[in-house]
Amino acid sequence: MTDPLNVCLEKKTGIDLPGSPYSVGWTRPQRILLVDNENPLPLDCGATLAPVTVEYETYGKLSRARDNAIFILHALSGDAHAAGWDADWEKYNRPWRKDRPGWWDCSIGPGKAFDTNHYFVVCANILGSCYGTTGPWSLNPHTGKPYGLSFPVVTVDDWVRLQLRLQDYLGIDKLLAIAGGSLGGQQAMSWVINYPERVQSAIIIAASARLGAQGLAFNAVGRQAILNDPCFLDGNYYGSAPPAGGLELARMLGHITYLSADSMEGKFGRRYQNGTKPCFRLNNEFSVESYLEHQGRSFVQRFDANSYLYLTRAMDYFDASAYGGGELAAAFASIEAEMLLISYSSDWLYPPEATRAVAKAIIAGGRPVSYIEIPSAYGHDAFLLETDKNTPLIDSFLKRGNYQ
Amino acid sequence: MTDPLNVCLEKKTGIDLPGSPYSVGWTRPQRILLVDNENPLPLDCGATLAPVTVEYETYGKLSRARDNAIFILHALSGDAHAAGWDADWEKYNRPWRKDRPGWWDCSIGPGKAFDTNHYFVVCANILGSCYGTTGPWSLNPHTGKPYGLSFPVVTVDDWVRLQLRLQDYLGIDKLLAIAGGSLGGQQAMSWVINYPERVQSAIIIAASARLGAQGLAFNAVGRQAILNDPCFLDGNYYGSAPPAGGLELARMLGHITYLSADSMEGKFGRRYQNGTKPCFRLNNEFSVESYLEHQGRSFVQRFDANSYLYLTRAMDYFDASAYGGGELAAAFASIEAEMLLISYSSDWLYPPEATRAVAKAIIAGGRPVSYIEIPSAYGHDAFLLETDKNTPLIDSFLKRGNYQ
Repeated sequence: MTDPLNVCLEKKTGIDLPGSPYSVGWTRPQRILLVDNENPLPLDCGATLAPVTVEYETYGKLSRARDNAIFILHALSGDAHAAGWDADWEKYNRPWRKDRPGWWDCSIGPGKAFDTNHYFVVCANILGSCYGTTGPWSLNPHTGKPYGLSFPVVTVDDWVRLQLRLQDYLGIDKLLAIAGGSLGGQQAMSWVINYPERVQSAIIIAASARLGAQGLAFNAVGRQAILNDPCFLDGNYYGSAPPAGGLELARMLGHITYLSADSMEGKFGRRYQNGTKPCFRLNNEFSVESYLEHQGRSFVQRFDANSYLYLTRAMDYFDASAYGGGELAAAFASIEAEMLLISYSSDWLYPPEATRAVAKAIIAGGRPVSYIEIPSAYGHDAFLLETDKNTPLIDSFLKRGNYQ
Repeated sequence: MTDPLNVCLEKKTGIDLPGSPYSVGWTRPQRILLVDNENPLPLDCGATLAPVTVEYETYGKLSRARDNAIFILHALSGDAHAAGWDADWEKYNRPWRKDRPGWWDCSIGPGKAFDTNHYFVVCANILGSCYGTTGPWSLNPHTGKPYGLSFPVVTVDDWVRLQLRLQDYLGIDKLLAIAGGSLGGQQAMSWVINYPERVQSAIIIAASARLGAQGLAFNAVGRQAILNDPCFLDGNYYGSAPPAGGLELARMLGHITYLSADSMEGKFGRRYQNGTKPCFRLNNEFSVESYLEHQGRSFVQRFDANSYLYLTRAMDYFDASAYGGGELAAAFASIEAEMLLISYSSDWLYPPEATRAVAKAIIAGGRPVSYIEIPSAYGHDAFLLETDKNTPLIDSFLKRGNYQ
């Protein structure tokens, strides 16, 4: 039973404790007011937003030439705590971080894919999320109350626009690399297309140019579950019980789409939760049911339902071809970054053929690209799970540019 | 925008009005008390049930030799009204039947796959459903109130055990054929395995020996949506507003699994509901969202949430291999019926390889079988939609036995 945010455990690659030479050790989230009223953040929806605080973490050291920075871009339910052990878990009331390292700890650290002996790795929580960066849970300075649904609808481009301000704040002219899986990979696409001169290379994993109709449909059902919840109160639930049932349901459904049918079959099959014979009851009969419920319940302890609405909507809106007037090749024609694209054979949320279409578009746009489809049974979650296969690819791609 | 129960419309095969020579014309549901207190129905869960009423319809005429009867076995959301036009739609308050024929009207009627010029076609509503056959909505004679969740958990075998009583009641020693898609196909498996001497042939469409872990998971999420609904009231909602939001959500989710990713893509893609630019809102933005909501809303007008719980659970429990101690070939070793199995290339709820496994098991059990995989983009719903492809297969299979 694995939480996708802590998948290293299951892979038995070992959990790297704070004192381990392979761990970045204890970390502390940093919060910075990146957007003030003097210089509000323009958004795709036409509104502007200020103030905006960003929570981020850094691992490794920025070189004197400021040329070794890598931005890690997190996915839907991720946060800035990508590696190491959060020394401030109590301060910010994040008990789930007590016994587990950051969500991509397998790939970030000394000697790992993103080798903190060489690189300065930065991960920032995205706009609209609930882990320290401004979102629907934040106080609206005009009302003194949480934004709730008055928070503007944000997009992947908006997130990246804010990340650019972090890049400026950190004094980094050009990022050595950006890297992300899933929705993180789509942020990377927005980066290379919109700010070609600010990024040297991009690693895009388990992501495609856009979500298909089926993916839009799953997101719509998940959001509807939250909107239906009697505790939702039009998003103004911060002073009362949160819409836990709805968010739990949304997560259960999302989780099905992150796994492949084969991996679910292998992991659970039709096994009963208790014993070998049916109990003839309407719930909690099969192991897969209990597993999903567990996933849902633990998610509501650490995620905000409003953020779920906003982030899935941003996921819906993203369409890389829009930058090229509907033509993917045109969208990628002006990029300058070196590109590595990785997909997984059993990913049905962002299937390999969709990632391949991005690779072809980059080539059609006249740019080189490295693309690899990794055979994996893990489905979409493979970007977090296939550490052994991902690491040499990322490592050699980063080294190829003689970046070290 | 098509309702899966009325898919002929979309296929432009023409809607056969009551006066058409291809229609069975006006029909009337029949209700019969098949199980009384003297002779209660034993159930797999260990309980017995009485009384039990069954609603059924018949089309065509039973031959003098009583050897031309075909039982049509309906799927999850189906009913006894498989063909023709319900003359009693007002009597039983079923307004949705006013403007549409029965759910398999494309396949049942004069000159159709199940040719009512030759066959006596019978379709009965399954136990636990909400269309006239006893279910959670029925009055519990011991309390005078609807059963609600005190209704026993029923299985596919229980449904078939009740259908056998209908066969006896109709005075039919051996059915010429049984036929069903999806959950209807699984009923057919139960028939041929449990009552080999009572069935001459079986047509099993878009069905496999069991639901996989992913299918179990989707059903669990759908049920959870109903259980979460504040109107659910532990199933005792018959005197108040039904848990419409939860049932709507369950149906939206179910609907995604009935379509293929490709057919959703082709039908909706990423089209906006209104105009060509995003409106930046959290719902009702994409066409596919509005479509699913429409499907969900119309479903709650005609289906009972408790029945949804019970029927999906029966779907979960069915596993043909259980009849053979876990061995599918052993399960089918004692069947006597001629078998036709049909699957559809894009069906991911009951995928072709799973139906093929049944065909192989039948052969391994020493029995002949006809199996065909139809190339189709329609996904699981193809069993209702691919009339042009299904008809000649069913027609020739039925004729092959010189049954006419």
